[in-house]
Amino acid sequence: MPLLGSNSYGKSAIRLVTIVRRGAHHELRDLTVSVRLDGDFRDAHLKGENRGVLPTDTMKNTVYALAKAHASMPVEPFAAAIGERLLVASLAATRATVEIAQHEWQRVRLGEQPHHHAFVRGTPQRRMAWVSATRDGAEFEAGIAALGVLKTSSSAFSGFLRDEYTTLIDTRDRVLATEIDARWRYDQAPESFDLAWRSIRNALVETFADHDSESVQHTLYAMGTTALERCEEASEIHLSLPNRHHLPVDLLPFGQENANEVFAATDAPYGVIDATVRRDGGRNPG
Amino acid sequence: MPLLGSNSYGKSAIRLVTIVRRGAHHELRDLTVSVRLDGDFRDAHLKGENRGVLPTDTMKNTVYALAKAHASMPVEPFAAAIGERLLVASLAATRATVEIAQHEWQRVRLGEQPHHHAFVRGTPQRRMAWVSATRDGAEFEAGIAALGVLKTSSSAFSGFLRDEYTTLIDTRDRVLATEIDARWRYDQAPESFDLAWRSIRNALVETFADHDSESVQHTLYAMGTTALERCEEASEIHLSLPNRHHLPVDLLPFGQENANEVFAATDAPYGVIDATVRRDGGRNPG
Amino acid sequence: MPLLGSNSYGKSAIRLVTIVRRGAHHELRDLTVSVRLDGDFRDAHLKGENRGVLPTDTMKNTVYALAKAHASMPVEPFAAAIGERLLVASLAATRATVEIAQHEWQRVRLGEQPHHHAFVRGTPQRRMAWVSATRDGAEFEAGIAALGVLKTSSSAFSGFLRDEYTTLIDTRDRVLATEIDARWRYDQAPESFDLAWRSIRNALVETFADHDSESVQHTLYAMGTTALERCEEASEIHLSLPNRHHLPVDLLPFGQENANEVFAATDAPYGVIDATVRRDGGRNPG
Amino acid sequence: MPLLGSNSYGKSAIRLVTIVRRGAHHELRDLTVSVRLDGDFRDAHLKGENRGVLPTDTMKNTVYALAKAHASMPVEPFAAAIGERLLVASLAATRATVEIAQHEWQRVRLGEQPHHHAFVRGTPQRRMAWVSATRDGAEFEAGIAALGVLKTSSSAFSGFLRDEYTTLIDTRDRVLATEIDARWRYDQAPESFDLAWRSIRNALVETFADHDSESVQHTLYAMGTTALERCEEASEIHLSLPNRHHLPVDLLPFGQENANEVFAATDAPYGVIDATVRRDGGRNPG
Repeated sequence: MPLLGSNSYGKSAIRLVTIVRRGAHHELRDLTVSVRLDGDFRDAHLKGENRGVLPTDTMKNTVYALAKAHASMPVEPFAAAIGERLLVASLAATRATVEIAQHEWQRVRLGEQPHHHAFVRGTPQRRMAWVSATRDGAEFEAGIAALGVLKTSSSAFSGFLRDEYTTLIDTRDRVLATEIDARWRYDQAPESFDLAWRSIRNALVETFADHDSESVQHTLYAMGTTALERCEEASEIHLSLPNRHHLPVDLLPFGQENANEVFAATDAPYGVIDATVRRDGGRNPG
Repeated sequence: MPLLGSNSYGKSAIRLVTIVRRGAHHELRDLTVSVRLDGDFRDAHLKGENRGVLPTDTMKNTVYALAKAHASMPVEPFAAAIGERLLVASLAATRATVEIAQHEWQRVRLGEQPHHHAFVRGTPQRRMAWVSATRDGAEFEAGIAALGVLKTSSSAFSGFLRDEYTTLIDTRDRVLATEIDARWRYDQAPESFDLAWRSIRNALVETFADHDSESVQHTLYAMGTTALERCEEASEIHLSLPNRHHLPVDLLPFGQENANEVFAATDAPYGVIDATVRRDGGRNPG
Repeated sequence: MPLLGSNSYGKSAIRLVTIVRRGAHHELRDLTVSVRLDGDFRDAHLKGENRGVLPTDTMKNTVYALAKAHASMPVEPFAAAIGERLLVASLAATRATVEIAQHEWQRVRLGEQPHHHAFVRGTPQRRMAWVSATRDGAEFEAGIAALGVLKTSSSAFSGFLRDEYTTLIDTRDRVLATEIDARWRYDQAPESFDLAWRSIRNALVETFADHDSESVQHTLYAMGTTALERCEEASEIHLSLPNRHHLPVDLLPFGQENANEVFAATDAPYGVIDATVRRDGGRNPG
Repeated sequence: MPLLGSNSYGKSAIRLVTIVRRGAHHELRDLTVSVRLDGDFRDAHLKGENRGVLPTDTMKNTVYALAKAHASMPVEPFAAAIGERLLVASLAATRATVEIAQHEWQRVRLGEQPHHHAFVRGTPQRRMAWVSATRDGAEFEAGIAALGVLKTSSSAFSGFLRDEYTTLIDTRDRVLATEIDARWRYDQAPESFDLAWRSIRNALVETFADHDSESVQHTLYAMGTTALERCEEASEIHLSLPNRHHLPVDLLPFGQENANEVFAATDAPYGVIDATVRRDGGRNPG
């Protein structure tokens, strides 16, 4: 009889919008939450016995039931509260994993005046949080998804390895564009999750902007290094950087020179560079 | 033998990024361009005779060939130049239509300092421009796509028509969320296409924010009215407003009241409201 | 005061799955329905007066309430029933438009045996139906969305118009790929909507397959002509054919010839060809 | 100085279409290929030294250069050839990972006759292959992505764990719908990769169809068990099954009973069930 290996179950894409009202002034938060349970669910798989199975519908309800009390806190303690509650509800579970994506809304401004209750959708950037809760405690990770950045200078790619299939030519000046996907681990909870997130987010953007890039790898490592410098509670950071190629258009057939002025932006194929940067002396990742 | 009715052809999704370099300071523009030709292309359809058919590949090349000279102008005159050139190239064409979507990038700021050459992807909002060029001249339309807005107060929907399938209950306080899709016609070219676009965009957002809404229709008309007031060159505006429903979660089973604080955001189904608002005395639309 | 021009409202993306049970044998249907009302809704827009406004939520309920009685009929009479009901419910409405997209599921087969109640998702092709109902009667249109087809022979593009921006070279042998988007009008209701739809669908695919194509335009007209020949109730057909370019890869740098064997499939930019083919003597389209 | 942890780079979304011509009869294959290299790329990250970095553009060229010679083989040996070539080209690489997704096209049939060179796009199901090549040899995995299945009978969910947030009610008859995402490991290469893939694909669909399901977990385990029984070279299989909820519409307010006949299909939130099923005595996964 085949063995049941690692397994988990849960609910994804729980869309949750909360409003906190301070008189006429409203705070808006727009989240997508996913929850997962790992544990001993052998009987459900092998025997169709559901006695130990908390429905994913209940997991969704749990997120909504805890939403109001946590609407003013950062997403990380909200995620931890969900995880802890799910471990209480499910004796079979050994781990509850909660992922929260926070979508950006910007308050409308009329002149200099921030509006009390109207918002404009922000950039596609999502603030991410992950909590992995066990009966021994919770581990916190944070991150960013889909933060698009582009620089029109200070990016090169040259001196690379060539073989018989290499047709790319060296360049000392190219457009560098990516969508930052970052995930970092907190060895200890920062005093302010909001400030910690903001300082790493800014570290990534600023380093991307100012680095004299010899390659995506080169800039990735610099970004990770600065991120760890700016936030001492973060012990390691993983970055995944797709290379959104912008190809200079050949204008010579039309009697024009193209001094890196006109580009065709392409979606596919795209390069992708992944790496983890780790604080020296930091804990080895599991 | 069947007749050939109205027909057109062209190239869509031409992705064009341009850089204008003023010393170390770079201007970035990110466009998606589509072009279409209408005209007498009977022989191509009925006989497979391509003598009068300008390839769509050439249309794409035309966009790239004209990009450099127009990189510093608003998108509207760029679109007009493309349309005029295509009419010169294709004798069979009676009309060239050009659509340009401008994608948002925000300049990186280090503290208060704007960065010379680094950018962060902006909101999903796209500035739109359409030019319809004939041998008699060009008509200009502008617009906005995917401008997401949400308000947490001053929105009601009550006193509506009820029938045997109506289960909706009246509300005097709901979340109102939409993605504005707007398209307006200029009776005459505004002095500054950039300023005209900005003033209508702001009119739409500000009216959405401040209106005491009895329905999407009610707010749509108010938005269109303000837009025409703020830009005298615009003679009519079409608005399409999906109603992105935010459903209050029933927290009573969990022993909590939900005073419009916790919502499930939904994608489907969604309402949609469409209307044209026209300046009185304005030209009747074709 | 600005005028209210043409306007409409309704509900989109109503997802409806029905099961008809004939003993152990189940029939499955998976639809996406959209409904719209046109009419005199001035007071809603100008005054925020909702007395004449049937909620879009009620429109959704109407679709569900009529689903059971129409689950065994073709989608066209179901759409007509929805439209007629909405005209009864809304006195202000002068026109109700209903769009139905039918998603494809294929019955699972175990060997030669069709399964009673299990299904596999079919191709992305969607059968479309539109009914436009007024107090004078209903007009029927049908169509197809996203029917992907590709041929590896019998497609050329040569002898076209050239100008100074033309770099494309003649080809007598290319890959031709498109996603057929078709919409046709029935002058009178066919005896069987299902058979009529099937015969036009097959006419389009077979003509695409067998035509000696000199261009997309050339094949489009042939497809439309055959469609009208095969279904006498259809008076005109509109076809929109994106040209999904497959670019032969230059293998010469790698010491290989590419005799139309290796292609890079691209998404953007893409050509697009649109035309209406009309039965001679047919009614002129509105 | 921070440490560089695990890292990799490569090219994704390489779109490759090949034609094999046997006289007038053409074979079509449509693939999306991704390649990755792991290895010692410290100097690239820390020093911006690209001497050991094979460009991702060259990786793409490698895929195209090897395409012709492998166009008639199953995707697995093609993937292995790409991986082995990349290890030859890059001395720094210790592992080359190649992923291939094969998109479905169905040959057009005219009556009973298969067409020589015309195809219709098939279902969204993608055949997947992964090869992980090191200097010690290659490991093969295969899989399926996005295989949509739905059953209208023989699916229950009852007797589950309840807590204070549980509102779900027991059901002995529900619609069960999912998109199968499967990935299995071959301990030894099967004689025919095509037959092995087909037998596991059919095992999954047939078990889904015929199983008396007490839960997604219950059916997942049954599917994995049958898959391993039908293909002895497969040592373990991972299944990820989103639960695409179909909610019975409450028709009572409209005076109708809903005996599981009318459903609203929903996208979000959705359940998700993940598990690995492993042959007893099989190798422990890494």
